[in-house]
Amino acid sequence: MEIEDTRNESPPHRVVITAVQPQVDAGRFPIKRVAGEKVIVEADLLADGQDLLAAVLRYRQPGKDSWAESEMRLVENDRWRGEFRVDGIGIGEFTIEAWIDRFESWRHDLLKRLEAGQDVALELQAGAQLIQETGGRAILAGASAEGKLLTDQAEMLHAATQAASSSVVAEAAGTAAHDERLAALMRRHSLREGATTLTPAVRLDVDRETARFSSWYEMFPRSCAGVPGRHGTFADCERRLPAIAAMGFDVVYLPPIHPIGRIHRKGKNNSPASSPDDPGSPWAIGAAEGGHTAVHPQLGSLEDFSRLVATARELGLEIALDLAFQCAPDHPWVREHPSWFRHRPDGIIQYAENPPKKYEDIYPLDFQSEDWRGLWDALRDIALTWIRQGLRIFRVDNPHTKPFAFWEWLIRSVKESYPEVIFLAEAFTRPKIMHRLAKLGFSLSYTYFTWRNTRWELTQYFTELVRTSDYFRPSLWTNTPDILSEYLQFGGRPAFIARLVLAATLGACYGIYGPAFELCENAPIAPGSEEYLNAEKYEIRNWNLEQPDNLSELISRVNRARRENPALQSNRGLCFHEVDNDQLIAYSKRTEDGSNAVLAVVNLDYHSPQSGWVTLRLEELGLRPQTSFQMHDLLTDTRYLWQGARNYVQLDPARIPAHLFRIRRYVRTENDFDYYM
Amino acid sequence: MEIEDTRNESPPHRVVITAVQPQVDAGRFPIKRVAGEKVIVEADLLADGQDLLAAVLRYRQPGKDSWAESEMRLVENDRWRGEFRVDGIGIGEFTIEAWIDRFESWRHDLLKRLEAGQDVALELQAGAQLIQETGGRAILAGASAEGKLLTDQAEMLHAATQAASSSVVAEAAGTAAHDERLAALMRRHSLREGATTLTPAVRLDVDRETARFSSWYEMFPRSCAGVPGRHGTFADCERRLPAIAAMGFDVVYLPPIHPIGRIHRKGKNNSPASSPDDPGSPWAIGAAEGGHTAVHPQLGSLEDFSRLVATARELGLEIALDLAFQCAPDHPWVREHPSWFRHRPDGIIQYAENPPKKYEDIYPLDFQSEDWRGLWDALRDIALTWIRQGLRIFRVDNPHTKPFAFWEWLIRSVKESYPEVIFLAEAFTRPKIMHRLAKLGFSLSYTYFTWRNTRWELTQYFTELVRTSDYFRPSLWTNTPDILSEYLQFGGRPAFIARLVLAATLGACYGIYGPAFELCENAPIAPGSEEYLNAEKYEIRNWNLEQPDNLSELISRVNRARRENPALQSNRGLCFHEVDNDQLIAYSKRTEDGSNAVLAVVNLDYHSPQSGWVTLRLEELGLRPQTSFQMHDLLTDTRYLWQGARNYVQLDPARIPAHLFRIRRYVRTENDFDYYM
Repeated sequence: MEIEDTRNESPPHRVVITAVQPQVDAGRFPIKRVAGEKVIVEADLLADGQDLLAAVLRYRQPGKDSWAESEMRLVENDRWRGEFRVDGIGIGEFTIEAWIDRFESWRHDLLKRLEAGQDVALELQAGAQLIQETGGRAILAGASAEGKLLTDQAEMLHAATQAASSSVVAEAAGTAAHDERLAALMRRHSLREGATTLTPAVRLDVDRETARFSSWYEMFPRSCAGVPGRHGTFADCERRLPAIAAMGFDVVYLPPIHPIGRIHRKGKNNSPASSPDDPGSPWAIGAAEGGHTAVHPQLGSLEDFSRLVATARELGLEIALDLAFQCAPDHPWVREHPSWFRHRPDGIIQYAENPPKKYEDIYPLDFQSEDWRGLWDALRDIALTWIRQGLRIFRVDNPHTKPFAFWEWLIRSVKESYPEVIFLAEAFTRPKIMHRLAKLGFSLSYTYFTWRNTRWELTQYFTELVRTSDYFRPSLWTNTPDILSEYLQFGGRPAFIARLVLAATLGACYGIYGPAFELCENAPIAPGSEEYLNAEKYEIRNWNLEQPDNLSELISRVNRARRENPALQSNRGLCFHEVDNDQLIAYSKRTEDGSNAVLAVVNLDYHSPQSGWVTLRLEELGLRPQTSFQMHDLLTDTRYLWQGARNYVQLDPARIPAHLFRIRRYVRTENDFDYYM
Repeated sequence: MEIEDTRNESPPHRVVITAVQPQVDAGRFPIKRVAGEKVIVEADLLADGQDLLAAVLRYRQPGKDSWAESEMRLVENDRWRGEFRVDGIGIGEFTIEAWIDRFESWRHDLLKRLEAGQDVALELQAGAQLIQETGGRAILAGASAEGKLLTDQAEMLHAATQAASSSVVAEAAGTAAHDERLAALMRRHSLREGATTLTPAVRLDVDRETARFSSWYEMFPRSCAGVPGRHGTFADCERRLPAIAAMGFDVVYLPPIHPIGRIHRKGKNNSPASSPDDPGSPWAIGAAEGGHTAVHPQLGSLEDFSRLVATARELGLEIALDLAFQCAPDHPWVREHPSWFRHRPDGIIQYAENPPKKYEDIYPLDFQSEDWRGLWDALRDIALTWIRQGLRIFRVDNPHTKPFAFWEWLIRSVKESYPEVIFLAEAFTRPKIMHRLAKLGFSLSYTYFTWRNTRWELTQYFTELVRTSDYFRPSLWTNTPDILSEYLQFGGRPAFIARLVLAATLGACYGIYGPAFELCENAPIAPGSEEYLNAEKYEIRNWNLEQPDNLSELISRVNRARRENPALQSNRGLCFHEVDNDQLIAYSKRTEDGSNAVLAVVNLDYHSPQSGWVTLRLEELGLRPQTSFQMHDLLTDTRYLWQGARNYVQLDPARIPAHLFRIRRYVRTENDFDYYM
């Protein structure tokens, strides 16, 4: 990233650019942004001696060939800052150009000399020469009017240096040194001699807004029939969409929709034996009917699926598909490409295992296969096939069991042509692996949110997630077909509400697995297990969507609050506030410009009412200590008047265990008719 | 630093090596060590899936061509650690090699399968095959005995797999999986297939011990005559050496010894006018008698200087010379190489300035000169000339006013041939510039210590210095010919003692400028100035070394404590302890192995006695809460019995404002004759 002494013809550049932020792993990976977001760049700019420096931030917007630039300014302690806003999607980049600012150094020294009453004839001569050169260069570069202004100025100063009187010289020098218009021209047309450029440039991976802000709803199409015993179809699924859109979701994520293997098919509740009626796990992909590019016949045809995608789009919903790169034993590839699988010493293909657990219905792919290129290309083709079907979001199953290099290549090569594609990494594994996958290119990542329940755990974890937000975008899930957390099992409805509010407000991207979630389904397969009893993964469920007390109305309110409050649409601006009761957690989110702020207070104890005093960090909310402000609870539509930093809250889980306040600041005085904006 | 997907013939390696420590600026600069020190290397090693990894630290000792290796072990959370000790000086390097450990993965899975009572015939067969291959490779590599052991073992296991009885198979598998001798052989001869290597390797800049631990004494040879009015000589200087050695110093640093310019020579107290008797500033280098490679005739001849160097060596002292790359107006280069200087518009060479200050007796060099290569080479030749005279330590004057690239090139190219050379950077400038110079290659650096007086300031600053110790080695100076701090001006003798103890115990490298220091010279040229009155820089001083109350005896004790206590010979192991009185500072240093520990307590208030309770962080000192231990004050040779964490101290500046305790732990019981080791 820096300039080495190369002993070339010209002496090495004097300015060093270092400690550049943001960067991910010293530039090994791009930094992530979403279209419209700001990139604030900081760097240490160092040079020998007393000369003043100048620097610009140079950037190429995603999808553009040309470079633009904006000025960088000294903050303090040799730290400089500049910024720009990304305005497209795809791969952009930025770099820094820094140089010794001869004009500003001249001006700075000149003023000191004048102040000390020194003779400055020589200095004025040197300055005139610099202005002359700069003007000449500006004219050559086509800026003839401004260049002319400079050369005229230079001539005037030259003339002054010829004056016999040192007071004439001092006056001319003083005028030039204070002339901000001259300084601006000199800055604009700076010769930038010996400028140092940060190389390589820092890459930017810019996604569309969905990668920053989206509400996801996961469901099994086969359970959408609404009639006990009947296998749901894409058409049934389509009929569910208006209700999902009404709840305020943006993305409907479907588990794999491909033919399901028959060999070693699992029965209900993951039983190793299945009856002919058992539908099997959708993740056991591939059968006589086809593999990853086919659809399961019982769901309908490809045309039916296309119709589903189109209907969703009309409703403002987007369908996300599962990329589960593994095969059932009867997947066509097993016959066509046996070399893509790992073989046992006896020549038989090895099924998936995590000793002592066995997954006989699934064959993992061998990414180190001799024909690895063929396999990798085929996997990319799967993604491209669905992209051609109109899909733009993939939830990737277990990416941590496939090589890192594969994902980096796959995501990069897909996004080269389709920068709007979003990949969500379903990696519940060790933290550094999850972070690595995010760095490699996944737009969104599953998190440990599901197991962070106490205030301390949540505060720690989300403080950490904010720190890594240049590359890791969390997607918070209340539940998944595989994970019914103990908190939900034991806490019932209040726990479901608390977790919904936490997910939807701590994370700008969150998801629920429904209708299990709305219906507060909380029976595990066994005590101590986090698996669902009668999991939809292995059987068709007929959900009673009309069940009283279901959460769909509340979910609608939460999602409406998200849509109406920009503060909830980003993971930046999160701030935790003290509460004198450990069972209560309070945190706020605020937009960069301060125009929108929300405060969530959640009772984490699903058993009992809890109360306490919240101590707001007022400065983080842009509030003054002595004013009062209105807290508008968006969940219940009630309003409270709060004053100063300390305010009382009480939350009864039997009613509702959370407040989600929009903070409405008192902005008018008693002279106005309305007290609150 | 990492493996990219290159889409080569072989699939990309699965293991990723990242977050490597120690490293300086992501590998841009080498890390610093001193011969004999440990390098503890940590890295995150990541791979997809469940396989176990193995890794080695590979290193090339400075000055060696061959590579050695030591095992790395998993610490936790995918973090691995290994270490080695550097045993030479010069440039060494280390890298990491990491791979999927097929044998350990096999063993790990096998044990789980056996535990679950699964049939393992196939697994045993796979294991036998791996052992067979490994043995075969070991034999080919010349380890025939061990290779044979492996192939025999493989055959035995193969035979077992042929057994009809699954209990025979299970027994053979169990034995193999628990066989640590087999595991060790497999580890030693691992095939390391698809191993990832960290590239580029991390460079190590290894210095001799003086760069870690040395006590410096700065003095002006011209003031060594001991007779008022006479210009001191190298021979006079030589006669001073035994006393300096007796005080326990290692390095005697001399300001420039070259001919002093006559043009615009400064008079006493930096007066712009000088009389013919004024000796001028030694930093105004060059006159008719020669430039940077000549010696000032009044000091003696080059032979006299050689004798001084030799005598010093016999006394265990090393002479350090000043590299001040600037010229007096009568330096021979001004005539010979006018292009090496910057010229004013009127063609006259520009003297040094920091507007409005003017240094008419000094011409700076123009490092961007058209003949920059010629200049750079000539400057390197100056260093090489003195190296050929037997010098191995340079104190570099104002390195921050010369280009970074110059220093990186100069230090690297000198140390390629003379790795034992030490460069001390006299850069009192902005913090990031100082750190940059250290990274570029300076072995030691002046610090802000001189202006850090309060407990808070000292604690903050030294906590920061410990953090940057991979590249920045502080050299703490109580005073310099240019800096008489306000603390010393106002505090007199107690302040001098406090600062001596702080410098000598907070820093493994420290220095004093004498005899001004021993004699507690504390008169500034003017109130508010940090310059000495009658500064030696501009005149010859005749010091009364016999002055009663001079600090030489105390300095001897402090330096003896440094020599006898390895804890004081390194900047690692520093720990601050709480005191309930802000005027007292307490800190300890402890060797890595815990065999030596010292505690310093200093009263920072030079006016009044101060007392307070010290709360020791016992665990940092390896002490147990309920035991008592002896505190042996090495400054006064008194002993105190302390017990537990909280102990009382009282320090009267009129007597001595500091304790320097060696902590003698209670290691024997009442059964022994001696209570304290």
